[in-house]
Amino acid sequence: MPAPASLVPLIYPMPGNEAFARALADRLSADLGTIETRSFPDGETYLRLRTDPAGREVALVCTLDRPNAKLAPLLFAADAARDLGARRVGLVAPYLSYLRQDRRFHSGEAITSASFGRIVSTSFDWLVTVDPHLHRYDTLDEVYAIPTRTVAAAPRLSDWIARNVPNPVVIGPDEESRQWVSQVASLAGAPWQVLEKERLGDLEVRVSLPDLKRLAGRMPVLVDDIISSAWTMVAAARHLTASGCPPPICLGVHAVFAEGSHALLAEAAGKIVTTNTICHVTNGINVTPDLAASVAGLLAERRS
Amino acid sequence: MPAPASLVPLIYPMPGNEAFARALADRLSADLGTIETRSFPDGETYLRLRTDPAGREVALVCTLDRPNAKLAPLLFAADAARDLGARRVGLVAPYLSYLRQDRRFHSGEAITSASFGRIVSTSFDWLVTVDPHLHRYDTLDEVYAIPTRTVAAAPRLSDWIARNVPNPVVIGPDEESRQWVSQVASLAGAPWQVLEKERLGDLEVRVSLPDLKRLAGRMPVLVDDIISSAWTMVAAARHLTASGCPPPICLGVHAVFAEGSHALLAEAAGKIVTTNTICHVTNGINVTPDLAASVAGLLAERRS
Repeated sequence: MPAPASLVPLIYPMPGNEAFARALADRLSADLGTIETRSFPDGETYLRLRTDPAGREVALVCTLDRPNAKLAPLLFAADAARDLGARRVGLVAPYLSYLRQDRRFHSGEAITSASFGRIVSTSFDWLVTVDPHLHRYDTLDEVYAIPTRTVAAAPRLSDWIARNVPNPVVIGPDEESRQWVSQVASLAGAPWQVLEKERLGDLEVRVSLPDLKRLAGRMPVLVDDIISSAWTMVAAARHLTASGCPPPICLGVHAVFAEGSHALLAEAAGKIVTTNTICHVTNGINVTPDLAASVAGLLAERRS
Repeated sequence: MPAPASLVPLIYPMPGNEAFARALADRLSADLGTIETRSFPDGETYLRLRTDPAGREVALVCTLDRPNAKLAPLLFAADAARDLGARRVGLVAPYLSYLRQDRRFHSGEAITSASFGRIVSTSFDWLVTVDPHLHRYDTLDEVYAIPTRTVAAAPRLSDWIARNVPNPVVIGPDEESRQWVSQVASLAGAPWQVLEKERLGDLEVRVSLPDLKRLAGRMPVLVDDIISSAWTMVAAARHLTASGCPPPICLGVHAVFAEGSHALLAEAAGKIVTTNTICHVTNGINVTPDLAASVAGLLAERRS
């Protein structure tokens, strides 16, 4: 006997998130909804839910790189779903933006993480994301007033390394990443180091490895949660090849890739592989099953 | 004796609103604050109030054409001002967006006016704007949960016509504009008509005048609240010149001008003049004094 419609979740992709939403809906045995959007000539957004959300558990899928232009349509869609009778409206943001500015480094600064979290929390009932870039926050609960779940990509990265790289050494970007990098490495059964990093300005980073000798005969695998400007990875790759190592494999969770950065890194790296939290040509690691499990857990918990 | 700092309002321009904010601050004898913004390579916004808002009545000036990309920084600035101790944080939006979709014309549509109003109302204490494009709403109170004031631009348009156009006839865009057009015309001491309009699609409009004979010997002045696609004005201007009238003067309150529309209208019109609610080369009518009076009234009322 099929479950009544209202118990089958309904997953809508925001524009650009169609493939991810479809894969997620498949894993969850959920229905895939359709949102129509277009821009009026004056720059306003028209938005229409083409699938009726009345009485349904709804999730909107919207990865949040380049977030500013995505915010208004996302909030409109959430409000519309609620207004049209959805039971609950959740946000699946494989990449979650605005976590870097988590305190006031200089007087007068906007704490954008807190604002963004507040705004999203007014429109959604829950949030699921992958490896949020938390520095000084311990959990997302400090910025999101709604229930959140975070998926750890480390096991998928480890698995990819174990399957694809013979004799790897895992290299993390900085002191702060020490714990995460050691986790990725130990699951892959590999040794690891973190870079010693000296920031010379917004765009210049000098890096070095504490113990180059321990890399002998191993394939270096640079790992980071976000590849954005890619400067750290580029600097590390150059440092490695200048030291006689092979061009490293670069693994990233979130393929943000600021303009020009992919070409730059491609030149310095032996290979670049990212997860599919942000759609990019380097995607090679699938985190959909983990996100699906997290969403399923959250929905089951809230239903009971 | 100068007023204590906390009684002098503090006006911040969002990027692009510097000239308007400066003029407004001058009229209000208010202080002009500075907001620093920049974009990180990943598309996130950095924002810093360079003037301390602690204990102050604060107004952010942000005209809201092309609104999507402006929303996040605007909310960040408002949250920052409040967080830094502003007494109240108001929004001066000379042009206010997202008022067109004021109900569900087809099932599933997002009522973007309600969402936008809700979102802005969570960050601001009050709102002042010029001629909001209200169709089925009677007042902004139906979409904004905060006190609002609206400035009518009609007297300024009338004044401009009376000073600059000998023997004018005022022509409005449609039946809906009848009351507003008659007001503009009567203050200018001019006769008026509204176009008979047949919409043949999103981009095609057929217009005609009910009584072409009454235009004989007069200078036609087309008026509208928003010039966006400009199709109605272009069609009307062509209709007039084809009927032997001189190329009309086109007056608009809000110079939205969707891409390409200004060139198109410039070709069909004798002259185009708009108010300065949106910075544009056609600006010729200054509504700053009216906005300043409205803000002053609102602040005085709330202080008492």
